[in-house]
Amino acid sequence: MTDSVRLEADYILETYLPPEQAAEIIAGEQSSGTFVAVPGETPELKARAAARVESLETIATYNAIPALDGRYPTDATMPLHRVKMTLSWPIGTVGVSLPNLMATVAGNLFELACVTGLKIVDIRFPTPYFQKYQGPGFGIDGTRELCGVQSGPIIGTIIKPSVGLTADQTASLVQELVAGGIDFIKDDELQSDSSVCPFDNRVDRVMRVINDAAERTGKKTMYAFNLTGDMDEMRRRHDKLVLAEATCLMVSLNSVGMAGFVALRSFSQLPIHAHRNGWGYLTRHRSLGWSYVAWQKLWRLAGADHMHVNGVDNKFSEDNVSVLKSARECLTPMSEDMPCLVMPVFSSGQTVRQAHATYSGLQSDDLIVTAGGGIVAHPKGPAAGVQALRDAYQAAISGESLDSASKQSEVLKLALGSSV
Amino acid sequence: MTDSVRLEADYILETYLPPEQAAEIIAGEQSSGTFVAVPGETPELKARAAARVESLETIATYNAIPALDGRYPTDATMPLHRVKMTLSWPIGTVGVSLPNLMATVAGNLFELACVTGLKIVDIRFPTPYFQKYQGPGFGIDGTRELCGVQSGPIIGTIIKPSVGLTADQTASLVQELVAGGIDFIKDDELQSDSSVCPFDNRVDRVMRVINDAAERTGKKTMYAFNLTGDMDEMRRRHDKLVLAEATCLMVSLNSVGMAGFVALRSFSQLPIHAHRNGWGYLTRHRSLGWSYVAWQKLWRLAGADHMHVNGVDNKFSEDNVSVLKSARECLTPMSEDMPCLVMPVFSSGQTVRQAHATYSGLQSDDLIVTAGGGIVAHPKGPAAGVQALRDAYQAAISGESLDSASKQSEVLKLALGSSV
Repeated sequence: MTDSVRLEADYILETYLPPEQAAEIIAGEQSSGTFVAVPGETPELKARAAARVESLETIATYNAIPALDGRYPTDATMPLHRVKMTLSWPIGTVGVSLPNLMATVAGNLFELACVTGLKIVDIRFPTPYFQKYQGPGFGIDGTRELCGVQSGPIIGTIIKPSVGLTADQTASLVQELVAGGIDFIKDDELQSDSSVCPFDNRVDRVMRVINDAAERTGKKTMYAFNLTGDMDEMRRRHDKLVLAEATCLMVSLNSVGMAGFVALRSFSQLPIHAHRNGWGYLTRHRSLGWSYVAWQKLWRLAGADHMHVNGVDNKFSEDNVSVLKSARECLTPMSEDMPCLVMPVFSSGQTVRQAHATYSGLQSDDLIVTAGGGIVAHPKGPAAGVQALRDAYQAAISGESLDSASKQSEVLKLALGSSV
Repeated sequence: MTDSVRLEADYILETYLPPEQAAEIIAGEQSSGTFVAVPGETPELKARAAARVESLETIATYNAIPALDGRYPTDATMPLHRVKMTLSWPIGTVGVSLPNLMATVAGNLFELACVTGLKIVDIRFPTPYFQKYQGPGFGIDGTRELCGVQSGPIIGTIIKPSVGLTADQTASLVQELVAGGIDFIKDDELQSDSSVCPFDNRVDRVMRVINDAAERTGKKTMYAFNLTGDMDEMRRRHDKLVLAEATCLMVSLNSVGMAGFVALRSFSQLPIHAHRNGWGYLTRHRSLGWSYVAWQKLWRLAGADHMHVNGVDNKFSEDNVSVLKSARECLTPMSEDMPCLVMPVFSSGQTVRQAHATYSGLQSDDLIVTAGGGIVAHPKGPAAGVQALRDAYQAAISGESLDSASKQSEVLKLALGSSV
């Protein structure tokens, strides 16, 4: 078995054991071994099936209260090691399966008693995974084509209030935004199907507005309808979207899960706007869970076209370094044959003021910016808000300062002078 | 809208803001509101759509470094509040949908800047959820009937080594265990389908052993085959299991996700043995993520029949109080009409020594115990190992001590005298 068919994952491990010992325990637990020696785990079987510790690099040895509770004294500091650990598995035993890969690289290991902290920070898939899974069906180019935006950021917004508007009220809002020349609109992740705003009604009302405008102007705004639900519901809603000539669907990744997502990708005729809500519980403690780099690879390979990355100067708890690292990762090829590039989606308090930091951090204009207040609260209305955002990004791309650009752009100047 | 159609969730929140203010921010973000006031969020809309803070109870106010990183000074202690918070949502906007419920009760809120810690500790579903979702198809009674175990714990084991055995080697191990009178066997969660041990081969070889034995003895061991995979694979494997007259399937919940799981339940003709691997990253920090009480309710309502709860004196990091609380919860009705009771599955280093603590903590004999070394390493072999576990639990149920029971049971005495 060659290394091209081994699966690899990197971790930041914290442990009170000598790192070599902890790594061996983890590799054993996540492959042929178990807590105790079992007679069947022969040297031949281990050679074929065992996970391997590929590398182990101590980052720090320090005295601290362990980050995670466990069966060790947590009321006193103890010597701990923080190490970068790489494990690999033969796919002869893991198989070629994203769901089963998750049980392997991110299963029981987080609960092991020797683990006082563990974060999975990267995953490298062997070739057969790229042969089995579909990756993005539309990606960057397909999205640009459907939006009619050949270059520059795709300027978008989110329907707010998050929930509570009826289908007709949603369509009225969409009318105003479409008239403003917006490229992209999305449902809030809390809005899928409800008696207040049934999915089908929303699609009918909103697509009538969008299709009418497209017929008149030639520009068709992309609307990502949140079809999150059970499999049969998602299938039915997808078909409804196709019939209504919608150009995007949205789904909540953590709500639907990997098996449902792969199935959705298999029949989807539309770009998949992937929402990461719930991401906080997977990542927010620095010593536990998933890094975005590792996590987003799963969904890109499985078929996401747009991935949420939060935004520069967001209103959540994440810092800009982390946001921009996530966004750059979406534009980093996963393999030569199948790069799986996806549009990073910036959101949360986005205005003209973040354009320069976003562009300089990303070094690409392949992005979707969704701004709420940043567009609708522009003193001259949504059309001016959209144009101001475009002008701000154009300035960033041209290497011109916001101040300087605002001398040429009245709408940008107004945006800068306003509270949004 | 009456309270019977509101969804409720309880949280333990840690925040540096006055708790009332933090709770309002969270309730707003998770319903009609957003970071800033938007014109459409009228009083009428709020009355219809907003989440409500039902109760807020301060547990402690203290000075500490916040548990989670965020945009506040974490190098110094600051005054924090730990509060129990209950929020409720009208299903008129949430809809009746387990996936969308997840985005509502466990979506963006974990990332909010005012949150320095957040754990979801319980969920209460309104009646329409019990009308839409199926709950366990077999539950406790159905599992007992298929196993032929009318009362007392169902004694089981896990195939070890975890991965690396071929289908034939697995079947040989099963032969030995079945001859020992075991009630239940499961695949390891790392074993689903691979070139070393293809799913179909394993099913064929194992079920031949089990069906032959059942024909001879009348006792049919339940084997939970891990069919975790993509939807089309799970469907095909399920049908294979039915054809082979298997009596149980196993699935990794975090690998498959909610939409896939609900779909699996909709066509499954077999009890669903639900594996929680990955649970560590959802729960292991005390101030982040999910409690088992909240989490397991989702899967029971969606249709799990057996839920993993770890084990007393396990080899992982979880303490016994937490294990037993999880297990009792599986036997606590979710509603009067639809209790959704499921078999708690104890595992991880289980032997005769944990029988009394397990039974006294659970106060029920409705459980599955899966012991590895505790069965196969018995000095007189697996049959004696199975009987020793049965005798230990019988003693616990009868209120007899292990020592006293071992005077009547040679196999129990041998187990106690051995290292297992």
